[in-house]
Amino acid sequence: MLVVMRKDATAAEIRDVMAAIEARGYKGHAIPGAQRTAIGVTGNRGAVEAPAFESLAGVLEVIPVSHAYKLVSREVKTEDSVVTVGGSVLVGAGQLVVVAGRCAVESLEQTLTVARAVKKAGAHLLRGGAFKPRTSPYSFQGLGEEGLKILAAAREETGLPVVTEAVDIEGLELVERYADVIQIGARNMQNFSLLRRAGRAKRPVILKRGMSATLEEFLMSAEYILSEGNYDVILCERGVRTFSDFSRNTLDLAVVPAVKKISHLPILVDPSHGTGRRDKVAPLSRAAIAVGADGLMVEVHHDPDRALSDGPQSITPAMFESLVGELRQIAPVIGRTL
Amino acid sequence: MLVVMRKDATAAEIRDVMAAIEARGYKGHAIPGAQRTAIGVTGNRGAVEAPAFESLAGVLEVIPVSHAYKLVSREVKTEDSVVTVGGSVLVGAGQLVVVAGRCAVESLEQTLTVARAVKKAGAHLLRGGAFKPRTSPYSFQGLGEEGLKILAAAREETGLPVVTEAVDIEGLELVERYADVIQIGARNMQNFSLLRRAGRAKRPVILKRGMSATLEEFLMSAEYILSEGNYDVILCERGVRTFSDFSRNTLDLAVVPAVKKISHLPILVDPSHGTGRRDKVAPLSRAAIAVGADGLMVEVHHDPDRALSDGPQSITPAMFESLVGELRQIAPVIGRTL
Amino acid sequence: MLVVMRKDATAAEIRDVMAAIEARGYKGHAIPGAQRTAIGVTGNRGAVEAPAFESLAGVLEVIPVSHAYKLVSREVKTEDSVVTVGGSVLVGAGQLVVVAGRCAVESLEQTLTVARAVKKAGAHLLRGGAFKPRTSPYSFQGLGEEGLKILAAAREETGLPVVTEAVDIEGLELVERYADVIQIGARNMQNFSLLRRAGRAKRPVILKRGMSATLEEFLMSAEYILSEGNYDVILCERGVRTFSDFSRNTLDLAVVPAVKKISHLPILVDPSHGTGRRDKVAPLSRAAIAVGADGLMVEVHHDPDRALSDGPQSITPAMFESLVGELRQIAPVIGRTL
Amino acid sequence: MLVVMRKDATAAEIRDVMAAIEARGYKGHAIPGAQRTAIGVTGNRGAVEAPAFESLAGVLEVIPVSHAYKLVSREVKTEDSVVTVGGSVLVGAGQLVVVAGRCAVESLEQTLTVARAVKKAGAHLLRGGAFKPRTSPYSFQGLGEEGLKILAAAREETGLPVVTEAVDIEGLELVERYADVIQIGARNMQNFSLLRRAGRAKRPVILKRGMSATLEEFLMSAEYILSEGNYDVILCERGVRTFSDFSRNTLDLAVVPAVKKISHLPILVDPSHGTGRRDKVAPLSRAAIAVGADGLMVEVHHDPDRALSDGPQSITPAMFESLVGELRQIAPVIGRTL
Repeated sequence: MLVVMRKDATAAEIRDVMAAIEARGYKGHAIPGAQRTAIGVTGNRGAVEAPAFESLAGVLEVIPVSHAYKLVSREVKTEDSVVTVGGSVLVGAGQLVVVAGRCAVESLEQTLTVARAVKKAGAHLLRGGAFKPRTSPYSFQGLGEEGLKILAAAREETGLPVVTEAVDIEGLELVERYADVIQIGARNMQNFSLLRRAGRAKRPVILKRGMSATLEEFLMSAEYILSEGNYDVILCERGVRTFSDFSRNTLDLAVVPAVKKISHLPILVDPSHGTGRRDKVAPLSRAAIAVGADGLMVEVHHDPDRALSDGPQSITPAMFESLVGELRQIAPVIGRTL
Repeated sequence: MLVVMRKDATAAEIRDVMAAIEARGYKGHAIPGAQRTAIGVTGNRGAVEAPAFESLAGVLEVIPVSHAYKLVSREVKTEDSVVTVGGSVLVGAGQLVVVAGRCAVESLEQTLTVARAVKKAGAHLLRGGAFKPRTSPYSFQGLGEEGLKILAAAREETGLPVVTEAVDIEGLELVERYADVIQIGARNMQNFSLLRRAGRAKRPVILKRGMSATLEEFLMSAEYILSEGNYDVILCERGVRTFSDFSRNTLDLAVVPAVKKISHLPILVDPSHGTGRRDKVAPLSRAAIAVGADGLMVEVHHDPDRALSDGPQSITPAMFESLVGELRQIAPVIGRTL
Repeated sequence: MLVVMRKDATAAEIRDVMAAIEARGYKGHAIPGAQRTAIGVTGNRGAVEAPAFESLAGVLEVIPVSHAYKLVSREVKTEDSVVTVGGSVLVGAGQLVVVAGRCAVESLEQTLTVARAVKKAGAHLLRGGAFKPRTSPYSFQGLGEEGLKILAAAREETGLPVVTEAVDIEGLELVERYADVIQIGARNMQNFSLLRRAGRAKRPVILKRGMSATLEEFLMSAEYILSEGNYDVILCERGVRTFSDFSRNTLDLAVVPAVKKISHLPILVDPSHGTGRRDKVAPLSRAAIAVGADGLMVEVHHDPDRALSDGPQSITPAMFESLVGELRQIAPVIGRTL
Repeated sequence: MLVVMRKDATAAEIRDVMAAIEARGYKGHAIPGAQRTAIGVTGNRGAVEAPAFESLAGVLEVIPVSHAYKLVSREVKTEDSVVTVGGSVLVGAGQLVVVAGRCAVESLEQTLTVARAVKKAGAHLLRGGAFKPRTSPYSFQGLGEEGLKILAAAREETGLPVVTEAVDIEGLELVERYADVIQIGARNMQNFSLLRRAGRAKRPVILKRGMSATLEEFLMSAEYILSEGNYDVILCERGVRTFSDFSRNTLDLAVVPAVKKISHLPILVDPSHGTGRRDKVAPLSRAAIAVGADGLMVEVHHDPDRALSDGPQSITPAMFESLVGELRQIAPVIGRTL
């Protein structure tokens, strides 16, 4: 249920409505907007007595919300959400945000090399994995806390805020301490305990779409995070699984306008995991920006020779720089800047 | 197998190689390029004796082609193919080509109204269905030859060449007579008899990707057309079937760079059928151009009120005009014009 | 629309209702059942005036049919349809029907060898392809009419009625002449011209499900055939396309009870194409019978050595005989015989 | 890598090989078989020096294992694994195992009612959820430890060992304490931290296939559990996500013979989640047994009226009893008993 306040509702009136909601054992989520404040009500099983709230001072109307998701919905908040990262980078505010870096953190030196290169080329955030979810138990699983320290050092030097994945609750607590954005990967999109914990974290969260997640499921997973009080959620499309014989996953760009229509949350696109092929990263990055995404996550590897064998989906710093130049030209067409 | 001629090979030498190929009961396809002529050899079951050809005058080398497709491959023809439509419109030449119009032809009047509107907004080709493949036998199946006459009249008045679908061999013969481009729809992508007949037609063919076609299958279906002698084939991505809960099909834009890499054929994108939703047509059209497609096929309906109920995927002429304006700005980023 | 006649309606009353339907330009399909006769009305665009029919003699009620399919529906005909093949084999009558044979007809000798072997092992119908739909234009496309003559000769000797695929209208006319059942393959499930022609054929039709066909689309394609007057349609599940890494297609056995619930048509399962792997044919055949299918289509190849290289999905006559023995034990569990 | 011991190798020789493996920093997994003992070597990054092991006493050969999975592979252990549950129920031993019960535990009374009913009808294990992974944060998430106590009480009374899902590490520790089998659900199939913890649990684990998991990924997730030392893993197919319009998921029964071919682990099938429809549970259960599964997991609800609204995929105890009767007849066809 959603309690919409009048434009001229006072802070005291809003507090009173919140108190009335809590008095009934529900949870109220006040979401201030430019036009008006709306209060999402969660925790109710079955019907809530709307009349009890409609008569409170400052209330414009009470809307029963039809979809299972509430807090992520544009019905609750009509304006686009803007998520502030690292105190300075705004995601969803009209300026495109580019997250770039290596897939896995391997050493301070290579992390710094890539960080400097992507910063120079125009990236806003540095990505790198300290905890890697790997299909095989025998594959390298990341440096762990050591990797987080390396990322923090790279931030120190370059000023780029850091995005890194957490794969369990214990790891999330470390990521929260060292990084600026907590990433929840596709494989954990329905790891509900992890989502709840991320909802209590003091950092923004990038939530990647699961490999066979519907839009409803994707938004419900975001709802888990918001329902715990963390409204700083950034969605990320990274390809779905199909029968494709020419790309690792099928990047589903139509999800971007679909999200924009029913949710206020910003959304990025990851063409590196979405295609799994180096030569498709630039074309799909351009397409992602043209379709209306708020930014990109791109894998960049400084050593083209090793990248050719190791990272079939990484692009070189030079390719990345050239790509950013192209995106800069497309951005104004959809009212964005880069 | 592929016989590659020397740069300085004479026309007589090429003729002699063709004769030698045919003398063995095979079929030769001479494909002139800017750099050199290559001759695709088809019709051989099993191995062809390469040495017999290597020693002919003017031959540079004989390449056994690994993939099942030959004539559609960049190994056979390194330069992009350019397909001329209606004597004047070039598809694949660097200028984006926009095909627009109603889904089905219903009357001369509405066809003319839409044709004038899309021409004014910048479309290059007029689309409209006279033969409609319908899931239900009880749905309207198109006006048939009467519809083709209407399309021809609309071309007469507007000068726009006409694209229309053929669903069987009898219909293809009519389409060939009245229209400028024969469209083979997704449901007929593996209707091999129809493909063979299209390969003997005197018109270019737009071949749409089947709903669950791999890239290999898509190119093999094009190969059917080329193998009969019609090299004027334009591919078209129109979405694949997935579990998506927010668009009718999943538009698979990564197929565009994938096609460009291994084939010389031009490729369009149809965001109307690809998404099935009016509000996603413009975003996905921009994305299609940004990813590198050679043009678009878009459903435009002049009557927004009826369109709202009838054609959930049609956009209005005004939306179309605004879209063309956006595409005009994106085109130069990828070295195209509009 | 559906006109349901009273149990005691006379033949004359039924004729009168048919005449009244046709007088309005519609088409009537009288479908006699054990309990009552129902008359499906097709050809109406928009609403039919129900009251005009409700008042005719012998009419019990007039039911507007909600789904797009009508004639294939159990609402029209509650009893299971039984299709008679070759004058003697009943499909859908409680006795399981096994169709077996080679994928392609290559010579009289091998066709006879396999025909004798599968007959001895208990097959009821002989399958073999004279017209092969091939992904590549350079692959063997079948012997054509010569292949049909070979199949007819094999029937002559073994007494097994013959099932063979038609891929276009011209071929269908030949198949109709030589064979006992016309097969429409998965790639042509939405080749509506071919379906219409099959609807006017004097032979039963086996309609295979398309690789990404929903149940609604599958039944609508059957409806095309019935709507032209041919009610002898047998459905066949042969696997759908998914991301599977261990079978060529994913055999979707749940479609069998789903079809049984909403349609009166019989349904077979083809585990050879459905899995594409020899070692999965027997397990999935058992599962198909256990789930309630009316029979099977199985590829059998008499030469295990060549089969090993040529037909990764063919089983040997010995494997087939052993399989039939297993099916014989499962049949009674679901009230069938073999 | 795999070290295969001679048939006559002594226990001391095996210990020595294990010690040699560990001396190099690797981990050895001795897997005794009826014929021979094999020792899987994990923890090696890159090549292991085979010659160093080949010369040890009792070693027959050293096999480099090509697939990423090792311990789950039939190359490591040729005999079928048998998992003992609750001290008495053997999974994979030739006797089919039926797991039945309600989806969620709601009260002691209803749990006991269902437990008694399924026991009477022939179930071997009781299922019921105390921790429910729910798409929505506002849905009932299970009774938690209270639910586990109820399940333990039901086991006390009926003697049926208990299977219940763990959705996070904290919950797994409780499940390990109260239940007989730990279930890892489809959404957590790639929750690698949870898999590792399950690998250190003292209970057998049922691992459900993820909704878009390939066979390779499914087996690799099992490998995570075995690699930590818990070899008591039972796989479970529960349907994959496709475009199906008639069942919630598409039950992929071909995975059963595929698993049997390359792995020694037992595999169950869950037709309740696999179809999501009550009327498809019995047909697909019969098919699952006919295809060769080692057993079933079925949702049974004692109150048909409430079940009709609440649990569209639950069957009643009467339907369950009748189903068990059918399975009893199919079992001997594939050499099983029930």
